Amino acid sequence: MAKTASKAVILLSGGLDSATTAAIAREQGFALHSLTFAYGQRHAVELQAAVRVAESLSVAQHVVQTIDLRAFGGSALTDSIDVPKSADPSAIRPGIPITYVPARNTIFLAFALAFAETIASKDIFIGVNAVDYSGYPDCREEYIAKFEELARLATKAGVEGAQFKLHTPLIACSKAEIIREGVRLGVDLSLTHSCYDPGLEGLACGFCDSCLLRKKGYADAGIPDPTEYVRAANDA
Amino acid sequence: MAKTASKAVILLSGGLDSATTAAIAREQGFALHSLTFAYGQRHAVELQAAVRVAESLSVAQHVVQTIDLRAFGGSALTDSIDVPKSADPSAIRPGIPITYVPARNTIFLAFALAFAETIASKDIFIGVNAVDYSGYPDCREEYIAKFEELARLATKAGVEGAQFKLHTPLIACSKAEIIREGVRLGVDLSLTHSCYDPGLEGLACGFCDSCLLRKKGYADAGIPDPTEYVRAANDA
Repeated sequence: MAKTASKAVILLSGGLDSATTAAIAREQGFALHSLTFAYGQRHAVELQAAVRVAESLSVAQHVVQTIDLRAFGGSALTDSIDVPKSADPSAIRPGIPITYVPARNTIFLAFALAFAETIASKDIFIGVNAVDYSGYPDCREEYIAKFEELARLATKAGVEGAQFKLHTPLIACSKAEIIREGVRLGVDLSLTHSCYDPGLEGLACGFCDSCLLRKKGYADAGIPDPTEYVRAANDA
Repeated sequence: MAKTASKAVILLSGGLDSATTAAIAREQGFALHSLTFAYGQRHAVELQAAVRVAESLSVAQHVVQTIDLRAFGGSALTDSIDVPKSADPSAIRPGIPITYVPARNTIFLAFALAFAETIASKDIFIGVNAVDYSGYPDCREEYIAKFEELARLATKAGVEGAQFKLHTPLIACSKAEIIREGVRLGVDLSLTHSCYDPGLEGLACGFCDSCLLRKKGYADAGIPDPTEYVRAANDA
């Protein structure tokens, strides 16, 4: 009789990191239950990317949760604040980025925990990264560890002894390492989307922090960047 | 010059406990920013109660956040599982109730934290109670304390030194004490709604755990119950 695969909940944004994270979970033998949020982000093209990535990874279940982070305001990703742009990766400012969304990962992980408990899964994968996104408080190891502690107290399953595990396989990786890992695992990274401020046809802008990191990652990895940017000249 | 009141985020369900909690926050001098969730619950009449309560308390802002807990399934409050009914409060079963919703308070508090950080508030009020609802893991003091720790790690404000405080003024109160406190603070408790399974016109059923606790609370407090139940005979 075939052994039933353990289930894992995967936070899937449609970006490169979460797609690679999902492929790592799959390689570890988990059945994938992916969760994507529609939260009034300006880059709704991410949602379509998430669906394409989920399909390409043959997930068991893909759930889109619609929430309204704009009800509270306060971030470039949900408000009309201009996303900072540059052609130079060294222009990325230190500290907490303007693209920080209050308590976003806490909201995402709370839903992931609800999802996991509902399907009797104890494993949640999240593609947070403390290297390129060092400014985000909710991408740090101490935050993730604290959420694991909370999960055990918060749930019926936890009270009954379940040890929820938050898997963050990319937390200490450079973007180049993430790209190499994604390629090794056969992820079609061309399906993913990183840009904070895509053009009308959904093409990446090539100049926001996220595009700069993606370009630099491919360059550092020595792998040709399959991303189609708004202006071809930006590939230089 | 008038001192500007500190802001507090109040989780307002439309029930008796959260209405009393909001009145306590108001008495403490906070400007109230109330947050209510529409989460596909069977008792949507709660949402209307929350709006009425918010108006009666002259809140500065009332936000309704729509989320879909049915996307994950798993609870009597969102699924079609029958809510247990009885005429006898001692029939309330020990342990975690069937009405438990996976990670619900974690989701609610995550949004409250986002709301608080956005409006530069450090105070979140939640009407959890560990006496009558002792079976819910996310109504316990240790859970609340853990969420406070998480809040400091999760947010830009926390990293910058803000100490988020979760106020749970009712956590150790009996239902009778809560009712007396609500009455003392001038809360119109007739606006509130507790029933898990209201009738077609929104009237309380009188037999679910929540109705039983409410009735018993009024009886113990020696205060006439203003609640209109589906069948008048249930008032006995």
